[in-house]
Amino acid sequence: MKQDRLAIKGARLVGRLEELAQIGAIDGNGCCRLALTDEDRRGRDLVVSWMKALGLAVTVDRIGNVVGLRAGRTAGAPVVIGSHIDTVRTGGRYDGNLGVLAGLEVVATLNDAGVTTDKPLAVAFFTNEEGARFAPDMMGSAVHQGALALDTALAAVGIDGETVGDCLNRIGYAGPEPVGTMRAAAYVELHIEQGPVLEREGVQIGAVTGVQGISWTELTIKGVSCHAGTTPMAMRHDAGYAAAEIACFVRRLAHEIGGTQVGTVGFLELAPNLVNVVANRARLTVDLRNTDEAVLRRAEERTFAFLDELAAREGVEITRRTLARFAPVDFAPEMIAMVEEEAQGLGLSTKRMPSGAGHDAQMFAPNCPSGMVFVQSHKGLSHNVAEYTAPEHLAAGANVLLKVVRRLAG
Amino acid sequence: MKQDRLAIKGARLVGRLEELAQIGAIDGNGCCRLALTDEDRRGRDLVVSWMKALGLAVTVDRIGNVVGLRAGRTAGAPVVIGSHIDTVRTGGRYDGNLGVLAGLEVVATLNDAGVTTDKPLAVAFFTNEEGARFAPDMMGSAVHQGALALDTALAAVGIDGETVGDCLNRIGYAGPEPVGTMRAAAYVELHIEQGPVLEREGVQIGAVTGVQGISWTELTIKGVSCHAGTTPMAMRHDAGYAAAEIACFVRRLAHEIGGTQVGTVGFLELAPNLVNVVANRARLTVDLRNTDEAVLRRAEERTFAFLDELAAREGVEITRRTLARFAPVDFAPEMIAMVEEEAQGLGLSTKRMPSGAGHDAQMFAPNCPSGMVFVQSHKGLSHNVAEYTAPEHLAAGANVLLKVVRRLAG
Repeated sequence: MKQDRLAIKGARLVGRLEELAQIGAIDGNGCCRLALTDEDRRGRDLVVSWMKALGLAVTVDRIGNVVGLRAGRTAGAPVVIGSHIDTVRTGGRYDGNLGVLAGLEVVATLNDAGVTTDKPLAVAFFTNEEGARFAPDMMGSAVHQGALALDTALAAVGIDGETVGDCLNRIGYAGPEPVGTMRAAAYVELHIEQGPVLEREGVQIGAVTGVQGISWTELTIKGVSCHAGTTPMAMRHDAGYAAAEIACFVRRLAHEIGGTQVGTVGFLELAPNLVNVVANRARLTVDLRNTDEAVLRRAEERTFAFLDELAAREGVEITRRTLARFAPVDFAPEMIAMVEEEAQGLGLSTKRMPSGAGHDAQMFAPNCPSGMVFVQSHKGLSHNVAEYTAPEHLAAGANVLLKVVRRLAG
Repeated sequence: MKQDRLAIKGARLVGRLEELAQIGAIDGNGCCRLALTDEDRRGRDLVVSWMKALGLAVTVDRIGNVVGLRAGRTAGAPVVIGSHIDTVRTGGRYDGNLGVLAGLEVVATLNDAGVTTDKPLAVAFFTNEEGARFAPDMMGSAVHQGALALDTALAAVGIDGETVGDCLNRIGYAGPEPVGTMRAAAYVELHIEQGPVLEREGVQIGAVTGVQGISWTELTIKGVSCHAGTTPMAMRHDAGYAAAEIACFVRRLAHEIGGTQVGTVGFLELAPNLVNVVANRARLTVDLRNTDEAVLRRAEERTFAFLDELAAREGVEITRRTLARFAPVDFAPEMIAMVEEEAQGLGLSTKRMPSGAGHDAQMFAPNCPSGMVFVQSHKGLSHNVAEYTAPEHLAAGANVLLKVVRRLAG
């Protein structure tokens, strides 16, 4: 069969990854393109120009999601290849970008071979997947799939005090397309694993079974500031100490629960934040994840109970706000099997595995058959400038994506 | 004796405190005049204008210390009344300011009564006592008394990246006077207690016996940033978690040692400081204080041993830098007794007590008879906008200062 001999061009994919990575480049081969910043705008402009050059019909919706459509022989719902191009502050060049640019590579390969699929294809990138500037993460795909109201998303205030709506207007990506008008026949996303498992086990392709549940809580602690030299320990209401206790608790909790449970305090700020003043205010975030919703809920409950006990013991006030909460997601069994089969058909080794990170794919999962393809992350590093996946793994992943898309689109 | 009936004018002192507090005023009656900022400059300009109006001969030395000299009948070394007018970021209006403005009030009272003392008098305010912007604290008095080299102080880099030397030039307080040319016959400082003891015990005047030893260490932790969802707990090198462990250790240590031991982590910053990224870097400060040098040294040793153990256990790198280190200081017995006697002569209750905070007086203590007068701090609050001392306590302290100065100056 002619179509089975089609293969993506690895150098072209790597070239696009390289070019996109120049926008917002930071020391150590990293990338900083926080959602809806000027760097994000420049990244979007570049990818849109590539979409147009490949003949895709580009639309931008009200939350800034960008979709490039390739017509099929029939006019129904498209098979969507999606991911994101925003990064965290100290991000790498593969997270998100790979899924989008591999989508373009699939299109380019089909264009070169003059292949028209039965169903239409779409390559999409979604706004603010990372959540590093605005909560919640996976914002654009959540709005797209009806899991988050457009108005709520537009009103979200970023860490720098700006709203999503204002930033979309400023960078020119508040599009005219209503959200959610496009239904997907299926959704596929190629992504780096962002963890160490595939590399450690020497496996080439991960057939992703689902996504861990995610719980993000922001805590604000009010204590009493006082002089660090003259205030006896017993008379303190130290917001900084309370914050530190919480970070230590989260670590203990994750170890105690074990299994897939992880817990992280990645953000922590004190006020007035001076060497000789007991802090009167602390703000921190707690990130808890588990593949099992019941276990995740129990982890949250234990955390909240600890906060109550701590507040009473230290005489501080702790308020909490949910920044994001996603239940674990299971991908469609036929999609998991399809990824596995197509990879094996290309002679690649595979492993079924859950994703520890959230992905746009999970927003599509309730509404259409959805699946993900993982490739190795060197040393498991991600959200780190040293994020790296070797060209042969990038190409392998993109070829699996091509095969899966062709099978879905006919 | 006519001179014994002299008394300061409380309303005039409170009026000056009020006027100076308008410069850098912050919500809640507080004050933010970090050393060598524009607010500090405006505060300095105001106090200098008052000094000149009182007939003092004003000089500014190379580290920005300001001295206003009042001639005596003889030309020898002056009795110095000193303190500071810089504040922490969330400071009150009494810390430091009281000592300087009470000095002016003493001069005004002597001027009004036409009294010339035998020895000259000087009222001085010293640069960067707080150390809230530049380390070490008590910088100006340390340079003045030869405990810190001028060049080292001028090169100190602040939390905002500027040097002391550049800031002095910018605000016009890099004076021509060489440092340390003025020797003091004696040094007296009136200060709020900044702790809760006098108020709790209903005592009016503290006769300060000495100052706690102070140890400030800045720690920098290098870990590895990675994805908070995909990195198993056992594979992390989390700089944020290590920082939290240190803050908890410092608290435990202070409680275990007990007595006058205090320990504070008031400053803590993470990088990249994002909800879903394990921190690769943390910076924090450890403030340890004790009246007993041997105990303080042991507290430092235990802290450093813990850091080594923690670094090895977590696979992080911890580097430390001493920001300030002052051994405990004992004031001259005759000065302690003099404060006590003069206060009791005015019918005020007294208590001998150490100071938990560092003060400019401790820099003078090795070189001339030095002493301090404490008045109550409401609820012990200081380095807090709610810092408050009632007018009757301010007046009582200033009258004790007047009596002690007259006895010293003859």
